[in-house]
Amino acid sequence: MAKQRFALLGSGFIGQVHAASIARHPGTELAMVADIDHGRAEALASQYGARAVAVAHAINSDAIDAVLIASATPSHAELLEAAARAGKAVYCEKPIDLSLSRAREVVEKVLPLNVPITVGFNRRFDQSHQQLRRQVEQGVIGNLELIQMVCRASEMPPVSYLRSSGGQMRDQAIHFFDLLRFLTADEVHTVAAMGAALALPEIAEFGDVDTSVLMMRMRSGALAQLDNTRRTGHGYDERINLMGPEGVLESGSQSPQGATLWRGNQRIQPGLWGDWFSRVQDTYYRHLDAFVRHLAGESVPDLPGLLDGLQAQAIAEAAVTSLQTGQFVAVEQLA
Amino acid sequence: MAKQRFALLGSGFIGQVHAASIARHPGTELAMVADIDHGRAEALASQYGARAVAVAHAINSDAIDAVLIASATPSHAELLEAAARAGKAVYCEKPIDLSLSRAREVVEKVLPLNVPITVGFNRRFDQSHQQLRRQVEQGVIGNLELIQMVCRASEMPPVSYLRSSGGQMRDQAIHFFDLLRFLTADEVHTVAAMGAALALPEIAEFGDVDTSVLMMRMRSGALAQLDNTRRTGHGYDERINLMGPEGVLESGSQSPQGATLWRGNQRIQPGLWGDWFSRVQDTYYRHLDAFVRHLAGESVPDLPGLLDGLQAQAIAEAAVTSLQTGQFVAVEQLA
Amino acid sequence: MAKQRFALLGSGFIGQVHAASIARHPGTELAMVADIDHGRAEALASQYGARAVAVAHAINSDAIDAVLIASATPSHAELLEAAARAGKAVYCEKPIDLSLSRAREVVEKVLPLNVPITVGFNRRFDQSHQQLRRQVEQGVIGNLELIQMVCRASEMPPVSYLRSSGGQMRDQAIHFFDLLRFLTADEVHTVAAMGAALALPEIAEFGDVDTSVLMMRMRSGALAQLDNTRRTGHGYDERINLMGPEGVLESGSQSPQGATLWRGNQRIQPGLWGDWFSRVQDTYYRHLDAFVRHLAGESVPDLPGLLDGLQAQAIAEAAVTSLQTGQFVAVEQLA
Amino acid sequence: MAKQRFALLGSGFIGQVHAASIARHPGTELAMVADIDHGRAEALASQYGARAVAVAHAINSDAIDAVLIASATPSHAELLEAAARAGKAVYCEKPIDLSLSRAREVVEKVLPLNVPITVGFNRRFDQSHQQLRRQVEQGVIGNLELIQMVCRASEMPPVSYLRSSGGQMRDQAIHFFDLLRFLTADEVHTVAAMGAALALPEIAEFGDVDTSVLMMRMRSGALAQLDNTRRTGHGYDERINLMGPEGVLESGSQSPQGATLWRGNQRIQPGLWGDWFSRVQDTYYRHLDAFVRHLAGESVPDLPGLLDGLQAQAIAEAAVTSLQTGQFVAVEQLA
Repeated sequence: MAKQRFALLGSGFIGQVHAASIARHPGTELAMVADIDHGRAEALASQYGARAVAVAHAINSDAIDAVLIASATPSHAELLEAAARAGKAVYCEKPIDLSLSRAREVVEKVLPLNVPITVGFNRRFDQSHQQLRRQVEQGVIGNLELIQMVCRASEMPPVSYLRSSGGQMRDQAIHFFDLLRFLTADEVHTVAAMGAALALPEIAEFGDVDTSVLMMRMRSGALAQLDNTRRTGHGYDERINLMGPEGVLESGSQSPQGATLWRGNQRIQPGLWGDWFSRVQDTYYRHLDAFVRHLAGESVPDLPGLLDGLQAQAIAEAAVTSLQTGQFVAVEQLA
Repeated sequence: MAKQRFALLGSGFIGQVHAASIARHPGTELAMVADIDHGRAEALASQYGARAVAVAHAINSDAIDAVLIASATPSHAELLEAAARAGKAVYCEKPIDLSLSRAREVVEKVLPLNVPITVGFNRRFDQSHQQLRRQVEQGVIGNLELIQMVCRASEMPPVSYLRSSGGQMRDQAIHFFDLLRFLTADEVHTVAAMGAALALPEIAEFGDVDTSVLMMRMRSGALAQLDNTRRTGHGYDERINLMGPEGVLESGSQSPQGATLWRGNQRIQPGLWGDWFSRVQDTYYRHLDAFVRHLAGESVPDLPGLLDGLQAQAIAEAAVTSLQTGQFVAVEQLA
Repeated sequence: MAKQRFALLGSGFIGQVHAASIARHPGTELAMVADIDHGRAEALASQYGARAVAVAHAINSDAIDAVLIASATPSHAELLEAAARAGKAVYCEKPIDLSLSRAREVVEKVLPLNVPITVGFNRRFDQSHQQLRRQVEQGVIGNLELIQMVCRASEMPPVSYLRSSGGQMRDQAIHFFDLLRFLTADEVHTVAAMGAALALPEIAEFGDVDTSVLMMRMRSGALAQLDNTRRTGHGYDERINLMGPEGVLESGSQSPQGATLWRGNQRIQPGLWGDWFSRVQDTYYRHLDAFVRHLAGESVPDLPGLLDGLQAQAIAEAAVTSLQTGQFVAVEQLA
Repeated sequence: MAKQRFALLGSGFIGQVHAASIARHPGTELAMVADIDHGRAEALASQYGARAVAVAHAINSDAIDAVLIASATPSHAELLEAAARAGKAVYCEKPIDLSLSRAREVVEKVLPLNVPITVGFNRRFDQSHQQLRRQVEQGVIGNLELIQMVCRASEMPPVSYLRSSGGQMRDQAIHFFDLLRFLTADEVHTVAAMGAALALPEIAEFGDVDTSVLMMRMRSGALAQLDNTRRTGHGYDERINLMGPEGVLESGSQSPQGATLWRGNQRIQPGLWGDWFSRVQDTYYRHLDAFVRHLAGESVPDLPGLLDGLQAQAIAEAAVTSLQTGQFVAVEQLA
C-alpha cells in the first residue's frame, strides 16, 4: 500500500510526539505541518523533511490523505469538520470540544460523511491494558463485577493550563472513562464523585479539583472505582484491576528497570516512572499504527471513534455534576 | 504480674480462636468457658484445662479477672454490661449490637463504670497495617490525601449467616471503617455507597449486597475509597494504600510462601491466601497481647475502645442509608 | 495411635526448639529431658511437664518410644548407637559424627538393628523446597541440568563455635549437600571449591573459611553451584534455582510481611529475614511430623535417613579436600 | 561538534543493529557500508542513505572519521589494524581474534598508534549493570566479597555457528568475564570450570559445551560464580548479584511489561524476555553513545578498550583449559 500522507495540525508538545510517530511508521509520511505559530511549524517540519503550510492548505491539499489534529482544544471541532468535509481520514486529539453539546453537533455533521476517524484515546493501546481486554474477551475471569482504576499524575500542571483545561474530569479522568468502556464493553449508568483541591487549593477558585474519587454503576450491574490526582510524591501511578468471579486481571504500576539494593532489613528497588509521558509514550505510536491498519482495511475493534469520544465526555459531564451537587448522577447515553 | 484469668463466653469458631490465644499467651490463663451449648463449652474447656461453667457464674466469679465475649451477636450488649458491672475487664467481639441505638445505650451505661474494655477490631493489629500507622504518625508521606482500601473475602458465607449478619456494611466493611479511622486518626464526614448482589442474587431479597464500592470524605478533607466482595476467584484479597504529598504507603495483598515456576513466557507464583482467616489469624493474638499490656498499665494507643466500636457502626449506618437511597450521607459523630 | 513418648537428649538452643515441637505435636509427648547440665534439663523439662533424667535412664526407659539427640556433636554417635540398641526410634541431629569414618562405623552397627532413624536435615521440610521436589518429580521442567543454591547466613558465629564446628563445609554447606541430593534424586560425582576468610580473617588460622563457592558435577551429568557465607549485611539469604529444559523452579529468598513505601523514585520493601532461624523455624516441626508419620507406618520418602547423613558428609569431605588442595575431587559413594 | 562519519564494515545481523544506532544517534552519520556480500551492503546502505563501498575504500576515505567493525570474526584483527593505521577511530566487535596470541600481536601494533578504540563489550552499558557499578564505586555495599552471574541464553544457535564460534567460553561467557572485571575493577586470578553438552550432545564432538559453571578467585580475594546455558525453557535469563559486607546489589532477570492474572491459588505474570536481543538491544546504542562522547573529549571510564578485550579473552582461555583438564587454572594478566 502507498504511504498515508499526513498533515499535522499543531506543533506543540503533543504535535511533536505525533510527528515523531508519523515519521517513524513505515506506513505513513509526514508531508505537511501547520500551526498558528508558523515558525514553530517550520521548525518541526524541517526536522522531518516536511513542509510548513497554512491550515487550510493542509486540509484541502490533494497531496494529503490524512489529517492529525493536535492543535489547541477550542479549534478541534472546526478542524475536524473541515477535514472530514475535505474527505480526509482524521486522527483527532481528545476532546472533540470541551462543550459536549458543541461536540455532539459536530459529530452529527461528520458521521454521515463516512470518513475514517479516530479520537485520541491512546491509552487503549497500552500493551498491558490491551492484554486485559483480550483476556476479558476470552472470559478468563468471567463477567466483570468490580473495576478499580487509578490515575495519579505526578506533576501539577500550571494553573494557566488548568484554568482552560475543563477541569480534572474532562481533562484527566476522561481517559479512564474511555478505558472503562473499552475494557468492559459496557456503559456507565450512574456516577458519583467527590473531589478536593488538596495539592493546589487556589484552583478551587475556578471550581477545579486535583484529587478525586469516583464510583460508577455499569449497565451490566458491575461496579467501578476511579481515583485521580494531579501530583504525587512517588511518580506516575496508573493501574487497573478487573475482578470477575474467576479471578483478577491487573495492569499494574510500572517502573523503569534498575538495580535492587538489599541492605539491613530493606529492599530498595526502582520506583515508578517519574512522569506520565514515560509510561504512555509508546501508546501514541501504537494508536497511529492501529489507525493505519484501519485505513488499510483491517478490522481494528480497539480503535476509538467519534461516538467513543462523545460518550467519554458524557461521563465526564455527569461526574462534574456529581462533584458540584453531591448527588448520584445518571449518565446520558450517546454512543 | 499475675496472669489475667479469663472467662470465655462463646465457644464457636471465633471463641475457639480466642481460647487458643489465651492459652498461648504467657500473661493470660483460660480459666472458664461458658456457652449456651454446654457440651461445646466443655469440649473446648477440657482442651485447655479450663472449667465449663454457666455464663452468670463466669461473669461474677472472683476467680476471673477478664471476660472475653465471643458469643452470638445479639447477646453482646447484655453480657458487656453485666461483665462491666461485675468489674471485669472486657474484650468484646464486634459489634456491640447490630442496632446502633442499642449499642449507644449500653456504651453510655458502661463507660462510667471505668473498667478496661476493648472491642474486637483485631485488624488494627495486622503487622503491615500497624507499620502504615507508625509511618503515617512519623510523617513519612505527609498529611494523608487519598486512601484506598480493598476487602475481598473469598468464600460466600451461608445465606443463613448473611440473613442475620446486619448486611455487608455492618458485618464486613465495618472492619475497614475502623481501620480507616485508625490509620488516619481522622473521622469520616460523608459517605456514598453503591452495591449489588452479583455473586448471590437471592440475598437482595433481604436487602443485602455482596459487592460494594464506597467513597468517603474525611473531616480533614482527605478522600477515601473502599471496595468489598463476599467471594472471589483468587483467594482473600485485603490491601490498603495511603497517599500523601510525599509518597505512598502500602499494605499489600499477602500470599503464602512457595515455589516459583518460570516456564515459556510465564512466571507462576503462589496466589493469595485462600481465606480471610489465614491472613488475619495472628491479629487475634496480637490484639489480646495489646489488651494484656493495657491491663498491665502500659499505654497502648492502638487499642480499640467502646467509642471506636460505636463510631465504626455509625459509619456503617450511614453507608447502609447511602446504599438504600442513592444519596451522599453525613456520618453521625459519636466518638 | 498412642502418642510417641520422646526423650530429648540435650537442652541447649536446638534442644529447646525440638522440645517445643514435641510438646506441640498432637502425636508426640515430651516425657523426659536429659543433659550433662542437669539444671538446664530441669528448667526445660518443667516448662513442658516432662521429667529431667540421666541420659542412660532416658535411653533405656520402657516409658520412652523415641529419642531425640540434640546434644553436643561429639556425643551423637555414641547416643545414636545406644538408643538404637535399646530399640528406640531415633531422631539424630546432624552430623552423626564430624569424623566420617567414625560416622560410618556407627552406621554399620546401627543399620542392622532396623529401628526407625532420621538424621536432622530439616531443610528438606521447607515448604518451598518441598514444592520444588514435588514439581521436579512430576517432570514440570524436565530432567535437571543446572542447580544453583545460595546459603548466606547473616551473623558470624563465635570463633569458639567455629573452632569445633568442623568448618564451613561440614557445618553449614552440609545442609545444601543434602538438599542437592534430595532435590535431584541424584548423587554428586565431583566437587570443586574455593573459599576465603573474608569476614573474619582469623579463622584462617585453624583452616576455616567464611565465604565459599562450589561447583559439582552430578552423576546424571547435571551441574550444580553453591555459595556460602557466614555473615551478610542484608539478613539471611537462602535460595535454590533448578533449571531443566522446560523451565526453572525457584525457591526464593524470603522476607517477613510488611509495608511498602513508594517515595521519590524508590520503592522500599521489607528485606530478608534477619536470621536463619526465622526462616527455617517451621521445618523442625515439619520434620518431626514426617518422622511421626513414618513411625505410624506411612511411607515418607522425604525423610532423611542414616545413609543420607553419611553421603552428605562424604560430599563435605570432598569439598574440604578441594578447598585445601585446589583440585577437583571425586566424591566417595556411600549411600 | 561535527557528526562522526562512520563506515560500517559488515552488514549481517549485528551490522544492521549498529547501522540503526549510527543512523539514530544525533552525533553520528552512517556514511558508508562495506561487506564481502556487496548486495547486502547495498541493501543496508540504501536504507539509511549511505553508500555501499569496498572495504579498503571505506577504511581509507577522507570522508570517514570512524570505522565500526562488525564483519566475520576472522577478519576483525586485520581490519582493526588497517583502520587504526588509517587514523580512524574504531569500534570493533568482540573478539579481536579467536586466537589470543593473534589478538595480542594486533593489540601490540595498534596501541602505539594511539587512535580511539573500543571493543564491543556492550553489556557494560546495560542500565541496571551500570547502576551496580556506580553503587559499588560509591561503596554502598563495601568491598565486594561474592559475585554471582547468570547468563542463560534461550535458543541454541545452529551447530554451524557453534563450530566456528570458539566455544561457549570464548563466545558467550566472555561478555561476563568482561562484566566481572568492569563491575569489580578487579582481575580474575584463578578459574575453574565444569561443562557439559546437555542440550545438544553432538557439539561435544568438537569439544564444545552448552551448559557450564565456573568459579573464580579475584586478586582481591573475592570469589565469583558464573553459569551459562545455550538454551532454556523460560526465555533469556541474565542476572548479576554482588555481595559486600554491607549488603547486596542485584541486576535481576528482566521481563516485558504485561498483565497479571490472579486466579485460584496462582499469580501468573509475564516471564522473561524471549531472547537475548530483546534484553540487551539498547546497550548497543548506549555503547555507541559512550564512544561518541569519548571522541568528543569526555572522560568515559566505562568504555571497554583493547586491553579489556585481551584480558577477557585471557580469562576465557584459562576457562577452556580448566574445562579440558579438570584443573584450577591461573589467568594470564595482560591488561
